[in-house]
Amino acid sequence: MEFSSKLLENAVNEMSQLPGVGKRTALRLVLHLLRQPKEQSLLLANALQKVREDINFCKSCHNISDKEICEICSNPMRNKSVICVVEDIRDVMAIESTGSFRGLYHVLGGKISPIDGIGPQDLNISSLVDKLKTGEVKELIFAMSPTMEGDTTNFYIFKQIQDFDIKTSTIARGIAAGNELEYTDEVTLGRSIIDRIPFESSLKL
Amino acid sequence: MEFSSKLLENAVNEMSQLPGVGKRTALRLVLHLLRQPKEQSLLLANALQKVREDINFCKSCHNISDKEICEICSNPMRNKSVICVVEDIRDVMAIESTGSFRGLYHVLGGKISPIDGIGPQDLNISSLVDKLKTGEVKELIFAMSPTMEGDTTNFYIFKQIQDFDIKTSTIARGIAAGNELEYTDEVTLGRSIIDRIPFESSLKL
Repeated sequence: MEFSSKLLENAVNEMSQLPGVGKRTALRLVLHLLRQPKEQSLLLANALQKVREDINFCKSCHNISDKEICEICSNPMRNKSVICVVEDIRDVMAIESTGSFRGLYHVLGGKISPIDGIGPQDLNISSLVDKLKTGEVKELIFAMSPTMEGDTTNFYIFKQIQDFDIKTSTIARGIAAGNELEYTDEVTLGRSIIDRIPFESSLKL
Repeated sequence: MEFSSKLLENAVNEMSQLPGVGKRTALRLVLHLLRQPKEQSLLLANALQKVREDINFCKSCHNISDKEICEICSNPMRNKSVICVVEDIRDVMAIESTGSFRGLYHVLGGKISPIDGIGPQDLNISSLVDKLKTGEVKELIFAMSPTMEGDTTNFYIFKQIQDFDIKTSTIARGIAAGNELEYTDEVTLGRSIIDRIPFESSLKL
């Protein structure tokens, strides 16, 4: 791509560093900004700079937070004896939006993935183990994605804490609400039969 | 979406103002930036701010340029008697990359579109007409997209200058290189027969 302006080229190049944003898309986005009032670009530029410079992670659960301890961890109404282990903050947002969980979270910041060079030491695992040593936590819920990396991560943590007096569980895997049985993959369908639950408890929600 | 941080929420909201970027994509992009070194976000923020604040349009052709007169308009090797009318700077880039045109451009900055409330006065048409009045230009090439808005814009300009002694042309419409004949739409195929060219000239490229 030949640009008629260095400023434009520079903006497009930086924009195209973002994942899934190619040069053409970046150009489209920058040209859009040029057609908008100046304030929009300034607000965007400031927001991106500020979020990166001043971002803070909760000292307890590693969720993104503007305070030392996030609002979930510091909320006296939350049940501190149950911790839900998740991969990243989007999972916290997803579970929070269900309104079905009143315990605390622990954000690992990724999952064990030898192919990507991510080992246990790259994740927030030691702080989780330290937290569990205090004896305040009674149950740990693994809520990683049901992938090989997710399972590996769950199992690694499980091995670290199996001598502690803590109940462990994983979120249920099964057929999603509204899905057709015949189009469900065999692994999920198989597990959903093995992990069947009493019919009365399915009526609760 | 419930955010655990105002800074994060703000960045996601600004990012999702961009066309085609929803809240989920914006969150993914911002979280990506948070995982990268600080410099990347600063470079992006600075580039976006600078391009919007210092952007300059060529006084002659309205192309984006870092100088008063862009490099194409100020290039003594370009043929100043031919002007190619385009919708936006991406079209200049596309035509330049073909290496098939050595004249000058005129960037309208859009096309006439009553539905979007864009009339002739919103485009760089009067400066084009002024330029043509000087008598230096011998040929005007319409290179708008072959859409109703493009055709309307071409025709509006044509009416303004029809009394001038200037040759006008539009870029050829026909079947794209490598396309299958049977999948070409009827309008294009019909025109390509009417606008057929001597076989010898098709051998030139």
